[in-house]
Amino acid sequence: MTAAPRDPVAPGGTIGILGGGQLGRMLVLAAARLGLKAHVYSDTRDAPAFDVAAARTCASYDHRESLLAFAQGVDAITFEFENIPSATLVTLARQRPIRPGAAALAVTQDRLTEKDFLTGLGIATTAYAAFGTLEEAREAIARTGLPAIAKTRKFGYDGKGQWTITHANDLEAEFSCLSGAPAIMERRVNFAFECSVIAARNDGGDFVAYDPPENIHGDHILRRAIVPSPLNKDQAEKAIAITGRIAEALHYVGVLAVEFFATRDGHLLVNEIAPRVHNSGHWTLEACVVSQFEQHIRAVAGWPLGDTARHSNAVMDNLIGDEAECWQKLAGQPGALHLYGKRESRPGRKMGHITRLLPLTGERDSA
Amino acid sequence: MTAAPRDPVAPGGTIGILGGGQLGRMLVLAAARLGLKAHVYSDTRDAPAFDVAAARTCASYDHRESLLAFAQGVDAITFEFENIPSATLVTLARQRPIRPGAAALAVTQDRLTEKDFLTGLGIATTAYAAFGTLEEAREAIARTGLPAIAKTRKFGYDGKGQWTITHANDLEAEFSCLSGAPAIMERRVNFAFECSVIAARNDGGDFVAYDPPENIHGDHILRRAIVPSPLNKDQAEKAIAITGRIAEALHYVGVLAVEFFATRDGHLLVNEIAPRVHNSGHWTLEACVVSQFEQHIRAVAGWPLGDTARHSNAVMDNLIGDEAECWQKLAGQPGALHLYGKRESRPGRKMGHITRLLPLTGERDSA
Repeated sequence: MTAAPRDPVAPGGTIGILGGGQLGRMLVLAAARLGLKAHVYSDTRDAPAFDVAAARTCASYDHRESLLAFAQGVDAITFEFENIPSATLVTLARQRPIRPGAAALAVTQDRLTEKDFLTGLGIATTAYAAFGTLEEAREAIARTGLPAIAKTRKFGYDGKGQWTITHANDLEAEFSCLSGAPAIMERRVNFAFECSVIAARNDGGDFVAYDPPENIHGDHILRRAIVPSPLNKDQAEKAIAITGRIAEALHYVGVLAVEFFATRDGHLLVNEIAPRVHNSGHWTLEACVVSQFEQHIRAVAGWPLGDTARHSNAVMDNLIGDEAECWQKLAGQPGALHLYGKRESRPGRKMGHITRLLPLTGERDSA
Repeated sequence: MTAAPRDPVAPGGTIGILGGGQLGRMLVLAAARLGLKAHVYSDTRDAPAFDVAAARTCASYDHRESLLAFAQGVDAITFEFENIPSATLVTLARQRPIRPGAAALAVTQDRLTEKDFLTGLGIATTAYAAFGTLEEAREAIARTGLPAIAKTRKFGYDGKGQWTITHANDLEAEFSCLSGAPAIMERRVNFAFECSVIAARNDGGDFVAYDPPENIHGDHILRRAIVPSPLNKDQAEKAIAITGRIAEALHYVGVLAVEFFATRDGHLLVNEIAPRVHNSGHWTLEACVVSQFEQHIRAVAGWPLGDTARHSNAVMDNLIGDEAECWQKLAGQPGALHLYGKRESRPGRKMGHITRLLPLTGERDSA
């Protein structure tokens, strides 16, 4: 059921990238390595990806003329963030192939659609229920149990649009935070650890996955990713197989990340799907010959997928807020330092990351 | 005797790069990783480095107004090729720090000056003698012996401006090829193998070196670099120490490469010095956490030098002329594929390279 492979974008061709943050920037750098140019489209004047792009468009994501001109100058289109207006995707998809496609994005832009999609595939998630009114929120809690997390269905990231509900009598106060946005209640998982699968599928249906990292969050933001994770071999294979089923069902082309909770009794629950390269895969830049960014460009450009083998263990730490201000000290420490070229640091803003490689071992040392 | 460290170029600053070929392109990509912008200056419209540069100047290297405008927009200046007119360097050096400096370039731009410099440091080279006239060429051969290689003193690369002289009666015919350019005669070394040291020095006098690769040439062009080389530990240390003495004597800031002949009786002769990142160091992109390109940018920007440790063995093969045309096949093979974004392939033109990583071993397997 996979689409027939289209003509690949040859070296010298141009990949259009919607979004100009650090993910877009690292996609541009990966494209350059393969002899491909990048045209970055962002609504932000100082977008970090502009600095390395062969062509730049600074315009809003719903500016039709800019979108059409952008599409006409590129050979294939992709994006670095999932909250792209669907009208934008429709406009662009009439001009050039968008990978991954609008269907994959539609599923993952809405937490309820995504959970229902997973449930339809028989893939386990935490208990969830949609709600709009306070009355529905009460019913939702009755179904999910407590503690639960109320989340807006759309436009959330890094913990934005999320409220934890520990007691039923917190509900009314937290409900007001939603300002009437459609929402979903999810039972909070008492997990042993979190992990993710970074994988790629091309339009010929080939599927490859990196070794799953363990992910450690603080304040809802990824702080650290570690490979190998504590998953045993069977669990890792299961997580990769689940990711493969998701990619196949979405007719997905490109890199996707699936975040999992590993429960204390050894089960895997899908937390969420990111239809893009992912912060928990940044360590692939150093620990693998083909990084997640190059892998995504390969899939988008219709090239063969690359090797996902890992030659080293790795620990990736995000540099958040003012943590990158001591860049001279960080540059003098072992590890691969990445700074994203953002002009201003703000609390919670991802400014860079640092990856340390460690010798390859069969099993991770206990923490 | 090292200059006091100057203020480093902070993230968000701009590195000016003279030259827009693949070395410049890979320098830009390395700068981007550190949050630094690049302004590329090249006299070639389709320069590969333009595609990834934040700012571009396309002008001749002696266009004073363009050079001044370029200098005023950058925080530090470096270059990717050594044949920069000295007047250009003088103009730029009055505006911004150029690293490495004009003195290092003056020594390495002229094969005779370079050999005399090495001899003055007590560093062994092959026998050599300068000549200008046919009569002097005869005297030169009498001093160097045969076979010898006649080389123009300036502007040679990849075997251009070189003629092998096997018999004394070849001399007249080969002499005419020089068209009267000042030249040097070098005794051809019957080497066991060739190797190089890629090293970096910063303006604080810190010096670091990568493990020396073995280099295999064909038609005077590097075909393959392999780490580890057949050098034993003592030889490798000696080669690195020689490179350190050269860097120190030149008050060098940046990455330099020193090419060596390893003779059959175990001696090391310096072949030449390249005052820049070097083709034989491309494998550092994958086999080390900090590549030669990032190392150079760190030195030029006044940052701490990075770790040169190698986590894998590596074999780097250049893709020359039409060898990159089968890019789809190459992309499907193991290894890190790099394509330089050059529009046209020509015989002898470096179009890309591919690096395969191998598990780390103490000693290289015999070939």
